[in-house]
Amino acid sequence: MERRRLLRFLFLIFTSIFLFFLTFLNLPYSPSTAGCDSSGNHPSPWYCTNRFLLKSPTRHLHKSTRHHSSDVPHHPLDPLTLQEFKKVQSIIKSHALFRNSAYALHSVVLEEPAKQTVLTWQKGDPLPTRKASVVARVNGEAHVLSIDIGAQEVTRRETGHLSGYPMMTIEDMTTATWAPLGNADFNRSILARGVKLADLACLPISSGWYGTSELEEKMRLIKIQCYSMEGTANFYMRPIEGLTVLLDLDTKRVVEIVDKGKSIPIPKSANTDYRFSAQNKQPNLVNPISIEQPKGPSFTVDDHIVKWASWEFHLKPDPRAGVIISRVKVRDPGTGKMRNVMYQGFTSELFVPYMDPTDAWYFKTYMDAGEYGFGLQAMPLDPLNDCPRNAYYMDGIFAAGDGTPYIRENMVCIFESYGGDIGWRHSESPITGMEIREVRPKVTLVVRMAASVANYDYIMDWEFQTDGLIRIKVGLSGILMVKGTSYVNMNEVNQEENLYGTLLSENVIGVIHDHYITYRLDMDVDGSENSFVKVDIKRQETSPGESPRKSYIKAVRNVAKTEKDAQIKLKLYQPSEFHLINPAKMTRVGNPVGYKVVPGGTAASLLDVDDPPQKRGAFTNNQIWVTPYNETEYWAGGLFVYQNKGEDTLAVWSERDRPIENKDLVMWYTLGFHHIPCQEDFPIMPTVSSSFDLKPVNFFESNPILGAPPNDEKDLPICKASAAA
Amino acid sequence: MERRRLLRFLFLIFTSIFLFFLTFLNLPYSPSTAGCDSSGNHPSPWYCTNRFLLKSPTRHLHKSTRHHSSDVPHHPLDPLTLQEFKKVQSIIKSHALFRNSAYALHSVVLEEPAKQTVLTWQKGDPLPTRKASVVARVNGEAHVLSIDIGAQEVTRRETGHLSGYPMMTIEDMTTATWAPLGNADFNRSILARGVKLADLACLPISSGWYGTSELEEKMRLIKIQCYSMEGTANFYMRPIEGLTVLLDLDTKRVVEIVDKGKSIPIPKSANTDYRFSAQNKQPNLVNPISIEQPKGPSFTVDDHIVKWASWEFHLKPDPRAGVIISRVKVRDPGTGKMRNVMYQGFTSELFVPYMDPTDAWYFKTYMDAGEYGFGLQAMPLDPLNDCPRNAYYMDGIFAAGDGTPYIRENMVCIFESYGGDIGWRHSESPITGMEIREVRPKVTLVVRMAASVANYDYIMDWEFQTDGLIRIKVGLSGILMVKGTSYVNMNEVNQEENLYGTLLSENVIGVIHDHYITYRLDMDVDGSENSFVKVDIKRQETSPGESPRKSYIKAVRNVAKTEKDAQIKLKLYQPSEFHLINPAKMTRVGNPVGYKVVPGGTAASLLDVDDPPQKRGAFTNNQIWVTPYNETEYWAGGLFVYQNKGEDTLAVWSERDRPIENKDLVMWYTLGFHHIPCQEDFPIMPTVSSSFDLKPVNFFESNPILGAPPNDEKDLPICKASAAA
Repeated sequence: MERRRLLRFLFLIFTSIFLFFLTFLNLPYSPSTAGCDSSGNHPSPWYCTNRFLLKSPTRHLHKSTRHHSSDVPHHPLDPLTLQEFKKVQSIIKSHALFRNSAYALHSVVLEEPAKQTVLTWQKGDPLPTRKASVVARVNGEAHVLSIDIGAQEVTRRETGHLSGYPMMTIEDMTTATWAPLGNADFNRSILARGVKLADLACLPISSGWYGTSELEEKMRLIKIQCYSMEGTANFYMRPIEGLTVLLDLDTKRVVEIVDKGKSIPIPKSANTDYRFSAQNKQPNLVNPISIEQPKGPSFTVDDHIVKWASWEFHLKPDPRAGVIISRVKVRDPGTGKMRNVMYQGFTSELFVPYMDPTDAWYFKTYMDAGEYGFGLQAMPLDPLNDCPRNAYYMDGIFAAGDGTPYIRENMVCIFESYGGDIGWRHSESPITGMEIREVRPKVTLVVRMAASVANYDYIMDWEFQTDGLIRIKVGLSGILMVKGTSYVNMNEVNQEENLYGTLLSENVIGVIHDHYITYRLDMDVDGSENSFVKVDIKRQETSPGESPRKSYIKAVRNVAKTEKDAQIKLKLYQPSEFHLINPAKMTRVGNPVGYKVVPGGTAASLLDVDDPPQKRGAFTNNQIWVTPYNETEYWAGGLFVYQNKGEDTLAVWSERDRPIENKDLVMWYTLGFHHIPCQEDFPIMPTVSSSFDLKPVNFFESNPILGAPPNDEKDLPICKASAAA
Repeated sequence: MERRRLLRFLFLIFTSIFLFFLTFLNLPYSPSTAGCDSSGNHPSPWYCTNRFLLKSPTRHLHKSTRHHSSDVPHHPLDPLTLQEFKKVQSIIKSHALFRNSAYALHSVVLEEPAKQTVLTWQKGDPLPTRKASVVARVNGEAHVLSIDIGAQEVTRRETGHLSGYPMMTIEDMTTATWAPLGNADFNRSILARGVKLADLACLPISSGWYGTSELEEKMRLIKIQCYSMEGTANFYMRPIEGLTVLLDLDTKRVVEIVDKGKSIPIPKSANTDYRFSAQNKQPNLVNPISIEQPKGPSFTVDDHIVKWASWEFHLKPDPRAGVIISRVKVRDPGTGKMRNVMYQGFTSELFVPYMDPTDAWYFKTYMDAGEYGFGLQAMPLDPLNDCPRNAYYMDGIFAAGDGTPYIRENMVCIFESYGGDIGWRHSESPITGMEIREVRPKVTLVVRMAASVANYDYIMDWEFQTDGLIRIKVGLSGILMVKGTSYVNMNEVNQEENLYGTLLSENVIGVIHDHYITYRLDMDVDGSENSFVKVDIKRQETSPGESPRKSYIKAVRNVAKTEKDAQIKLKLYQPSEFHLINPAKMTRVGNPVGYKVVPGGTAASLLDVDDPPQKRGAFTNNQIWVTPYNETEYWAGGLFVYQNKGEDTLAVWSERDRPIENKDLVMWYTLGFHHIPCQEDFPIMPTVSSSFDLKPVNFFESNPILGAPPNDEKDLPICKASAAA
């Protein structure tokens, strides 16, 4: 007994030291120290450290010369500046609601002025009142506040009686991750698995909502699962399977420990590390290759306004959506005038359900934006690899839980892309014998962000083409969420389906999962009053004697009257085009001007619509939805997504079946992926991409890039290998 | 009467001069004079002219130093050399079948040795017997001949009793196009429309087969429709609507003239010309941009063998398929050995049905490979615009109707592409706090051809990724086939559907049509004996009490036993993965090695399956088919496609329902497009692209590009603007 007591004592001592050490270690990358001069009541806040600044200066071309402390907003949609964040922080600190209370700020962003105000605002006009929208939890209760920064006025917004909690703060995630180490039972479990506490890495896993426990109704819950870092940076491949800690996210108290997989070995570390430093160096199979622009890039970035070719738009980082693109306008080559295309577009929610119903897995049905903050998870981009040369990098400024602003450097990049594609071409054939060969290269502008939501990496692109097309693309890379198993070879497996995935390596199963990325596209096609037209492509049989043909296909236009007309499930054998038109604006020959959404990357959720995760992710029940503009309908999974019951989703809003003809419309599109992992995804996944397009359809009078010149030898750069090579 | 006679006389004189002039003018682009030293009996064959050699030397970087006259085959699949073509020509000329007969060679290509012979052949081995496969028509009858070039032996191959005719020769097309000018009624019709004969441009339109006329059964027919070139190079936008000439393709005799659209005005030429020289010069909105490789490209081309990164394959131009890729192998990063992926892949057929059942349009249901020769229509690529710098260009050598070889210079290009995409990446998030940011740029190798089948341009890419993925991509550009109309504004139109398309400009309708591109993919996944596995992704409901989840999705593997199991119609709500596996080869952990086809660019034909065009295009009845390897099953629409009845299609072969488990398999995939034209497609279409992928699935033990290095500043080029800029 004495010996056991001693051990326990040693554990506690060790754990405490370790916990302290890890808490310190476990700080987000934040190379800037901006915001750290504020006299916060945190002696050493995580966002002030620059201890872990990546030390590879030769690969960091972009020297951020923006100090941000002197940033001033110039556009109604410009995000809060460093100074504004600080004012908000001090307004809150001194406000009655917060005084003498425990509170955390789950979101501090610009409260955008009313759409009409922004639409009528012109450069040179005074800015509309600058307000912050703050989501705060005070003594366990959520408040949505509108803060007039100049007038220092705080207004509480009514949100109704919604289940669920606001997006986690980074502090929620980091402290929750390590909280189990304060629990001796947990530590014993870890050691019993043969893992040293120093080799432990844990992840905070949103617990969803299942209606199966009373705890769910009264507590903000999170589940923690852990991995061994021993011998690899890729701890994700070394799960301590079956060990799940249920934690009270508010008190960080361990509520329950389930330890069911003791017989499952932790997969070995061999061949899991993906870092270049861990590889056997081999000669590069591909010579250096680079996109070069001898006269520099053709775009300009003025604060948050990006101009390129015929395009102009406002771009800002957002802690929840990642990137928000607003006021997208394109120049009409005929009139020279800028024409509206989209008021605003962003990733409204991501839904990632895993397909394993067993105890340690069933709850993994992530909502990456509403639970984790998609923008908060966007890490600094790696110049020359995440984005090519000549890219421009934009920083994000976000607030920590206490309101202190911090800078996420190089969070978004903007670059021109040319991969050898062709904008348009025509050669005359030998049949006509005319000597024509006209070809135009295709150059595009890409806005990119890469979010690393724990293991997974999402590469989020908005690609603008000179012909008026916008391609919205998602690349999936990063690391699989894997399951430990005692199997080392498929010949031991009787019923393959019970793996719920693929055996990727000895003792490692890649579990089947889906990804759904739902975009909110507030389209303003040449004005705000639009209609949604479903152009059905249908077989028409001919009448007897009408034609030697028995059939042909025809296009039948159906204008959607109400929301239910615009709940679209795509069908290969009942195809349609999906147009958003301005019924009041016609082309010269009388077609309504429009943009169409061109689906791509389609996968439909197959979960039972009454399954709790699918109810929460009900915004994936259709691939396309159209709703009337409503400033409270931003987030497809609801304002408070964490642990909610799905009563505030796009599916619920749309069910009201409001009129949508000739209204200000919002279109929602969901990109989907079914992912059955394969061995090539181990230990890190080659990127898989999908995209959909917003494409002009009778928006222009004719091909808008008819006048584009071809490439000419004399304009291209003269290059040589770098002397350092 | 005298006056009329005089007019008629003048017409005839004029027409004769004009016809001569146009025949001379109307010669295909052929910059090389190779083959013209042969003592043919054509005094001035069209392929010998270089009158219309494009005169823009500054934009032609690729100086073809390959004279071809000394070409020697080095690989069993190498195409016929110039010398071999000439030998074939002389063997034919002196052969009994051809002596004293009118004949035309519709196809002269290498007769590929048996697959097994090619598979066992190794570099250094003597080449298998060189043979030519010739499709000839002699006195109106088609013959398929096998010609042993060395032994000068001619063998006739039995083709059975097939309807249809061989692919047209270029001479068929060019002479047919201008033949109506020998008909006075036709000329009168043209003049009556107000078109000068000198402004006339006509197109040869394959007539299909409808079973509605006796002529179809006994005559090789073609329809000719014409346009006015007055004021524009883009005559396609100026149709002489409703005037259709039915021609006997053998005698070039006019069989019938239908002239129904006299009241329809010819659309104006304004704004139709797309040539750069015809534009109002505007400043370029985009600065010069180029893919630069300071150490040059990383691929090698040795005759027809291309090697790049881990890939090796054989590449050759083909008059019918365009480009044929063979013996595709990839190096296993684990063992260092080359492993088979695909024996051969090419575009087997294109089916382009237009959706207008009226008299002048119903028959437009093109088969671009089997009727026109997709490779024959591939024009020389435009360096710096069709393909970026550092591209390698490959010439095609084809035979004219009399067997004389000619060179299609720069028909195919090969280049490395980098557009800023990411091969794989991972950053560690603030949650775990590890300082990791590993990103690898994505560089690919593209093989490109661009075919201009009259108005339309198809950009055909085979893109190889370092991670083992092959992307097969089609870009559609070029010019719409439009219909004249008396409408100038949609407000005149009562029943929109009766336009059969979109009013694009005054008097111009872009007619709805589909494109189907069917690929024959003779996969050899790590060996020739493969199985096709449909991995169904299905909802599984949980049992009561099993899980808080009601449902999840699971993957159910179904091995196809016979062909009908592999006739696949894609369904969004009944999704599957489609694997070709080698059931005899397992990974270390026991998964069968495989490749999957990842559908993309899906559109299904909606025509009635009993409609004559759909019977002929029945290979589009499914998106995927798998057949056992059969060397007679190459062309999805049949060996003789022109005017056939559809009795020799993939659909017919597959209906035999042969066993396909653990066999040498051929997979067929059809990319589809529904095209409802829009004004942006006028007067030339911005490229629309679609693609599908062949992707390794447990083919490699793990991510094959784990060891790839990141970009480093020191390796990238130093560039400056050209002094000439």
